[in-house]
Amino acid sequence: MRTSIATVSLSGSLTEKLTAAARAGFDGVEIFENDLLTSPLAPEEIRARCADLGLTVDLYQPMRDIEAVPAEEFARNLRRARHKFEVMDRLGAETVLVCSSVSPLAADDDALAAGQLSELADLAQDFGIRVAYEALAWGRHVSTYDHAWRIVEAAGHPALGTCLDSFHILSRSSGPKDLEGIGAIPGEKIFFLQLADAPLLGMDVLQWSRHHRCFPGQGGFDVAGLVKHVLRTGYDGPLSLEVFNDVFRQAEAGPTAVDARRSLLILQEETGIRALPAPAAPTGVAFAELLTPDAEPVTALLSGLGFARTARHRGKPVELWEQGAARVLVNTGPAALSPSRLRSRAGTPVDGTVLTAIGLESPDPAAAARRAEALLAPVLPRRRGAEDAPLDAVAAPDGTELFLCATNRPELPDWRADFADVPHAPAASGAVRIDHVALTQPWHHFDEAVLFHRGVLGLGAQESVDVADPYGLLRSRAVANADGSVRFPLTVGAAPGDDTAHARHIALAVGDVVAAARRFTGAGGRLLPIPANYYDDLAARFEFAEGELEIYRDLGILYDRDAHGVFRHCYTHTVGRVFFELVQRDGGYQGYGAANAPVRLAAQRAAR
Amino acid sequence: MRTSIATVSLSGSLTEKLTAAARAGFDGVEIFENDLLTSPLAPEEIRARCADLGLTVDLYQPMRDIEAVPAEEFARNLRRARHKFEVMDRLGAETVLVCSSVSPLAADDDALAAGQLSELADLAQDFGIRVAYEALAWGRHVSTYDHAWRIVEAAGHPALGTCLDSFHILSRSSGPKDLEGIGAIPGEKIFFLQLADAPLLGMDVLQWSRHHRCFPGQGGFDVAGLVKHVLRTGYDGPLSLEVFNDVFRQAEAGPTAVDARRSLLILQEETGIRALPAPAAPTGVAFAELLTPDAEPVTALLSGLGFARTARHRGKPVELWEQGAARVLVNTGPAALSPSRLRSRAGTPVDGTVLTAIGLESPDPAAAARRAEALLAPVLPRRRGAEDAPLDAVAAPDGTELFLCATNRPELPDWRADFADVPHAPAASGAVRIDHVALTQPWHHFDEAVLFHRGVLGLGAQESVDVADPYGLLRSRAVANADGSVRFPLTVGAAPGDDTAHARHIALAVGDVVAAARRFTGAGGRLLPIPANYYDDLAARFEFAEGELEIYRDLGILYDRDAHGVFRHCYTHTVGRVFFELVQRDGGYQGYGAANAPVRLAAQRAAR
Repeated sequence: MRTSIATVSLSGSLTEKLTAAARAGFDGVEIFENDLLTSPLAPEEIRARCADLGLTVDLYQPMRDIEAVPAEEFARNLRRARHKFEVMDRLGAETVLVCSSVSPLAADDDALAAGQLSELADLAQDFGIRVAYEALAWGRHVSTYDHAWRIVEAAGHPALGTCLDSFHILSRSSGPKDLEGIGAIPGEKIFFLQLADAPLLGMDVLQWSRHHRCFPGQGGFDVAGLVKHVLRTGYDGPLSLEVFNDVFRQAEAGPTAVDARRSLLILQEETGIRALPAPAAPTGVAFAELLTPDAEPVTALLSGLGFARTARHRGKPVELWEQGAARVLVNTGPAALSPSRLRSRAGTPVDGTVLTAIGLESPDPAAAARRAEALLAPVLPRRRGAEDAPLDAVAAPDGTELFLCATNRPELPDWRADFADVPHAPAASGAVRIDHVALTQPWHHFDEAVLFHRGVLGLGAQESVDVADPYGLLRSRAVANADGSVRFPLTVGAAPGDDTAHARHIALAVGDVVAAARRFTGAGGRLLPIPANYYDDLAARFEFAEGELEIYRDLGILYDRDAHGVFRHCYTHTVGRVFFELVQRDGGYQGYGAANAPVRLAAQRAAR
Repeated sequence: MRTSIATVSLSGSLTEKLTAAARAGFDGVEIFENDLLTSPLAPEEIRARCADLGLTVDLYQPMRDIEAVPAEEFARNLRRARHKFEVMDRLGAETVLVCSSVSPLAADDDALAAGQLSELADLAQDFGIRVAYEALAWGRHVSTYDHAWRIVEAAGHPALGTCLDSFHILSRSSGPKDLEGIGAIPGEKIFFLQLADAPLLGMDVLQWSRHHRCFPGQGGFDVAGLVKHVLRTGYDGPLSLEVFNDVFRQAEAGPTAVDARRSLLILQEETGIRALPAPAAPTGVAFAELLTPDAEPVTALLSGLGFARTARHRGKPVELWEQGAARVLVNTGPAALSPSRLRSRAGTPVDGTVLTAIGLESPDPAAAARRAEALLAPVLPRRRGAEDAPLDAVAAPDGTELFLCATNRPELPDWRADFADVPHAPAASGAVRIDHVALTQPWHHFDEAVLFHRGVLGLGAQESVDVADPYGLLRSRAVANADGSVRFPLTVGAAPGDDTAHARHIALAVGDVVAAARRFTGAGGRLLPIPANYYDDLAARFEFAEGELEIYRDLGILYDRDAHGVFRHCYTHTVGRVFFELVQRDGGYQGYGAANAPVRLAAQRAAR
C-alpha cells in the first residue's frame, strides 16, 4: 500500500520537506496550503520537484468553510475553489481535502450541505479533481465521520467522497463500537485516509489536534484498529500521515521523516498488510561500551565497583571489564578523540567519557538486524579486522550503537572471540548484572526513541513520568523486555539545549546494595552524597527496622516501594558523562526509583 | 500587606531560590517540601539563611492525603505528620498546608474528615503549628473552597483554618457568584492565601495546574476580584504566590522573582491596598534607536526610505534621522562594539545592528519613571554630559532601554535639545510616523514582558496569536496604548535557543504604501520578495480592482483585512538584526497582518 505524508508534519521549507519525505521512502505527499504559499517555487516547479524525487502529490489541503452557507456566500466559495483548482491543476494534485465548516454562517442543514458539495464536485470534475469531505472533530454542525458520510452519500456525486482522519475520529471515540460505522462506507467512496496518533490528553480538542498529534504508535489511540476497519471497506488509497506537532515543527525534517515512515511500517505490520522480519527481542544486556579519551578515571571506578579487567580486544584499544554477568567495554580508540559517533541533536559534540554502545543479547542477531534494517535503522559498518567475529549493529535514533550479539552460545559467533583473556584476580562478586542502562535522549526525538525501541527491538514501553530537576522538568519513559532483563529508561531534558546536560548511567543489579556500597566506599569509591533531609522524609513515610535508616543515611542509599516490592539504590560520582548506580530490587519492584530522581538530580547538580 | 512566594515557583537550588526571592523584595517564602528534601542544608540552616536574607518562612507545604481515612491509615498519617512537624519546628515554619485528599482510601464523610483534621490540629498545636486545609480542584471528595470551609468550621479547632488558593477556586469557577461564599469565612480562619493566575485553557485541571499557572495579571483569571473578596473577610496574612510553570522552572530565578513581585505589586494596586505612582501611558513613539558598529548599511536604508539626517548629538556619536514624525537614532558609540546592553537570555550576545532603545513620548516623564521604579524596572544611568537634557530611562525585561521623554513640549526638557541640527535636504514625505516597533523577546520571559508593558507603561495587551515559522511556532502578543499611537508586538520564538533568531523591526505608517514602496525601490532599495503563490491565494480569497493585485505582486506588498478595514504592508531587507516595514492602515484595521507572518518569515528565511 502506498504511503504518504502531509508536508505540515515536517519542519523547514517546502523543498526541505519534500526531500526529507522522499529520502525516508514515502511514495507521496499531501501539500499543505501554507507550504505552497510560502514557497518561492511555482506549482509547476513543485510538481516537477516531486516527480524528480519520485513523489506523487496525493492531496491538496485544506479547503475550509465551503458548505451549507447562504447562496451569496457559496458563490464566493465556488469562486475561491476555482482558483484553488487551477493551482491544483498546475500542481498535479487530483484530490482536495474539504473540512467540515466551522463558519458561523454555516447552517445545520444536511441537504444544503450535500447540494453545495455536489456543486463543488461538479466544478472539481471539470478539472479532473476529486473532493474528499472530512468531518473536523470541532466542526460546527458536522463533527463525526458518519455524519460526513451521510452528506456525501446524499449528494451521490462521483467526484465527491469522504476523507477519514484517525485523529478526528479517535479523539471523539468512546470505544471500538464507534468505528463500526466505517464498514457502512464503500471503499471507493473513501477518497483519502489521514493518520495521526495522540497522547490521551484531557484538553480542548482543537488545541490537542494542532499541537500534540504524533505518529501512529507514539500516542494512545488504536490507530491500527481504525485502519483495519478502513481496509475492510476495500479502501486502496494511500496511508497518509498528517501530524501537527510543536516539537516536529522545530526538529530536523530528515530524522522526523524517517521516524514517520517507521511508524507507518510498524502500523502496516500490525494491520497485516506488510510482512517484516519478526522481532527477536533481546534477552539480556551483553555489554555496555564506554568511549573515553582517558581510561584511568573510569577504570578506577570500575575497579572500585568490583569489576576486573578480564580481556583485551585483539585488534583495537578496547578492554573488557567483568563482574558476574555485567560487562563493560572501555574503548580508548581514535573515536574517543573525535567522538562524532554520539552527537546531540542540538549540534553540540559530546566529549569526555561517554556511553556510546550497548551489546544486546539476541536470540537471533541476524534476524534482529534484518528487522532493524527493514525499519530504517542505519546498519553500521562493522569496522572489524579479518579475524573478528561478525557482529550486527544498528544505530538508535540518538546515535547509540546497538550490537545484536551472542555470548557463550556455541551455535553463534561470539563477540567475546574478538577478545583475548588477560590475567586477572577474580572479580569481587559473581552476583552482579546490568539492571538497566539509562539513556538520555536528544530533545526533539523522545517519541521517536520510544517507538524505535518498541518497534525495532520488540521492547515494551512503560508509563511516561515527569521528573523535577532543579532547572526544569524532565520526561522519562522506560522500555523493557518481558522479563525485565533488558531495561532502558529514556529521559529527555526540559528544553532543546538541555539534551546533553544529563549524563547516562549504567545500573548494576546487586543482591545486597548495602554490602556493595560498603565494598565500593571501602575501596575508596565516592558515592553521591544524599541530603539528610531526604532521610527525615523517609522516616516520616516508612517504618524501618532499628538502625536500618541510619545505614542508608550513612551510605547515601535511596529507598522506594511500589505495590510489588522494595527498591534500594545509590549512585557513584560522575566521570565525564557517565555514572553508575547500584540497585537492589526485591519482591518484584518494577520501577526505577523515579520518586527519588529529584533528590539524585539535585545532588548531582550540587556535586558539580 | 506582606508578600510571599512558594519556592516551587522559582528555578534552581533552594539557596538560589531564597536569594532570588529576597533580592526581589519578598517578605517571606513558602517552603515546598521537595526543595527542602533536595537541599544539603539542614532545616536549622535554612531557617538561619532565611533570617539572614530577611525572609520569614510563612508556610511549609504540602501535606497530602491525611483526612477521612480508616483509623489504621490515619494513625500512620499522624505518625508522618509528627515527623513533619518536627522538621517545621527546626525550620521555624508555623503554618502547614494540608491539601484535600486524593487517596482512594478517603471516604466521602465530612464528619470523619473534620474529626481527623481536628486530631491533626491537636498534634500541630503541641508544636505551635497551625494547619491550613485547602481544597484541591481535583480533590477526591473535597474540591471546592466552601466545602473545605464547612469541614474546618465543623471541626471548630483553633489550630485549624483554611487555605484559599486562587487557582483551585477560579479554575472551577463559572462566575463571580461562586466567590460570594468567601464572605462567609471569618478572616481569622483563613490561615493562608495562595495566588496564581492561568491562561484560560480547556484542559484537565490537574495538568493545567501543574504546568501552566502564571503570575497574577499574566493569565485570564480575575485574581484581583478574588483577593478583594478575601480582604473583606479581614484576612491579614501574606499574599503568597504559588505558581507551577514549566517555563519558570527553567528560567533564571532572579528575573522570575522580580517578575513575580511586580505582579503582586500591580495586584495590590488593583485591589486598593497599595498606592503606586499613577501610570502615565505614553502618547507616541518619540524615536527608535539603533546601535550599529557600521552605520553605512542602515543609513543607506533610511535614506532609501526617505529619511533625512537632520541632527547630530552634541556629545556622542549619535545621528538623528527624521521623516515626518518618524525618528530614528543611529548610534555608533562604543556600546556598539561591545553591545552588552542587549543580551539574549540564552546568553548569546547580540551583534551587528540592533534595536536597543525606544523613546516614549510621555505626558509626565518623571512620574512615569517613578512608577517604573516602584514596579522594579531598573532605572538606567543617564550617561549624559553636563549639558544634556535630563532623560529618564528604564530597562524593559528584555534589556531594551525605554526613554521617557518629551518632544517639542516647551514646559518639559526636550531630548532634541541634545542634538544640533545639520544641514539637510527635506525628507521625502511628511506623512510618516512609527506605526509599531516589533520586539522579539527572550524565550523564558514572554509573559513577564507583557505584564511589564501593561503594568509599568500602562499599555493594553491584545490577543495572543500563534504564528507558523517554517522552523517552529512563534507566539505573538501586542501591547498598545488606547489610540494605537504606541504599539509593540512582542514575539517569542519556538524554543529557548531561538530568541535571537528573529530580527526586530520598525514599522512606518505611510498614507500610500504603494507610492512609498515605489519610492523606496526607485531609490535603489530592495523589498523582501514575496512568493507568487501568495498572490494566487489572495486572488482566491479577495476580489480586487482591475490591476490592483498585480501592483502588490510586483512590489511584494502583503494584504489583509479585518472587520474594520484593510492593511497593506511590505518589508525591507534586513540589516544586522533590524528591518523596516511600510504599513498602510485603512478603515481602522487593528492588527499587524499576522495572517501574512508565515509568508514573511519564510521569505526572510529564504533570503538569508
